[in-house]
Amino acid sequence: MLAAGLGQVLRLDPDGIRLVVAGRTDAGVHATGQVCHLDIPSSAWTGLPWHRRSDPPADPAVALLRRLAGVLPPDLRVHAAAAAPPGFDARFSAIHRRYAYRICDDEAGVPPLRRRDVLGHPRPADRRLDVDAMTRAAAGLLGLRDFAAFCHRRDGATTVRTLLEFGWTRDADGFATARVVADAFCHSMVRSLVGALLVVGEGRQGPEWPAAVLATGAREPRVNIVPAHGLTLEAVGYPPDAELADRARAARTTRRLPASPT
Amino acid sequence: MLAAGLGQVLRLDPDGIRLVVAGRTDAGVHATGQVCHLDIPSSAWTGLPWHRRSDPPADPAVALLRRLAGVLPPDLRVHAAAAAPPGFDARFSAIHRRYAYRICDDEAGVPPLRRRDVLGHPRPADRRLDVDAMTRAAAGLLGLRDFAAFCHRRDGATTVRTLLEFGWTRDADGFATARVVADAFCHSMVRSLVGALLVVGEGRQGPEWPAAVLATGAREPRVNIVPAHGLTLEAVGYPPDAELADRARAARTTRRLPASPT
Repeated sequence: MLAAGLGQVLRLDPDGIRLVVAGRTDAGVHATGQVCHLDIPSSAWTGLPWHRRSDPPADPAVALLRRLAGVLPPDLRVHAAAAAPPGFDARFSAIHRRYAYRICDDEAGVPPLRRRDVLGHPRPADRRLDVDAMTRAAAGLLGLRDFAAFCHRRDGATTVRTLLEFGWTRDADGFATARVVADAFCHSMVRSLVGALLVVGEGRQGPEWPAAVLATGAREPRVNIVPAHGLTLEAVGYPPDAELADRARAARTTRRLPASPT
Repeated sequence: MLAAGLGQVLRLDPDGIRLVVAGRTDAGVHATGQVCHLDIPSSAWTGLPWHRRSDPPADPAVALLRRLAGVLPPDLRVHAAAAAPPGFDARFSAIHRRYAYRICDDEAGVPPLRRRDVLGHPRPADRRLDVDAMTRAAAGLLGLRDFAAFCHRRDGATTVRTLLEFGWTRDADGFATARVVADAFCHSMVRSLVGALLVVGEGRQGPEWPAAVLATGAREPRVNIVPAHGLTLEAVGYPPDAELADRARAARTTRRLPASPT
């Protein structure tokens, strides 16, 4: 959809546009901070048609945003565009991804205007999710670990990741909200982690349990993969421009645990 | 829809349920703070079936909320319920209604997760809506006035209202947001007022213009009625319990301007 819009606005063959996207968003996952890059001829950038002849914006990025706003569907918006610095790769230059997962545990259900990005998980008023216990449990998962217990395995792909931040709070709307930051995530990893933390938040297991599951290295049937629609990719972090190419080279190398066999 | 759900949960004939609603919400308008009342036999209240036999909630309201959450569609939620104090009338006891109207004037368009409750009104980055001018203009409309210029006329209905608050701010998401409070509103009044303020926010008229339109008492073709989906009824205010019945009697009386002919 984005490639088609870019092709139309940049007057390029959409089949020839290869978008490289920073963070995976499975079907149903939202993104407010997604980043992507594409390679285009410099003439397509500098020759961007002006939105209004009487008022040419000085910056091709402004012309691009105006035109894209007119051709993209309303569930897809591009907020910023720029010529990328040398060595930039939206996926491999990234140093971290930040996701949020939002849960409404009000018995009355999810406020209608938020039902598309917040999971409903109704609990009696005196047995709401214990976000403090969930945060204690999440802290036990931080660091460079093999997240095989919380990932869909794919042949030849490592499940080693560095979990940089994982905490739970009540936001201004009262939703139990996870903030999860890692260098990268494997498939369904955030949704599995949240599923494990829900077991703790409900008091069915203690805060030490998710770390114990992690240590087994095997998927645990009591860990449900929570629905996609509560999950939002909120930010992607990059190093200073001078380090972009080095970072991309390093990220293409398979991650290994320090103690793991070679 | 709510009457059907209440009928099911209270085991009453839904055709016999007469809901009295505090604030009008035309098609497409949202409500996060709507209030309604209905009269039911006391046996229907005290005899509410428990949600779970093993864990009967002490309060019929809790049982009602649990059951309603299960039968209402996801775009309709009931957050609280209580036996009303004597003299309470959801519509006529109310002393004010508060609405919000949200506008995204970012050129890139409305963030997809908010496109259902925020109006898109894209403006170039250097000509965003001037919310300070809009607030100055709004201040000129406050007080007990005849809002005929901003209302759909209905035969026999007064268009005199008391506008208690009307101001514009940029919220945390950057949306230009109106906060509008009045004792009551006539049909399409908020959406007409917002339409007039948009003309000021774009700089096409000065801040004195909406008050001048009001003074004419006639609808003005340059005032568009903005779309419904940016509007949300956020709160309804009631007086102390002892004053509910008096307030309901007073509100049923036709409002008149102090100086208007009898």
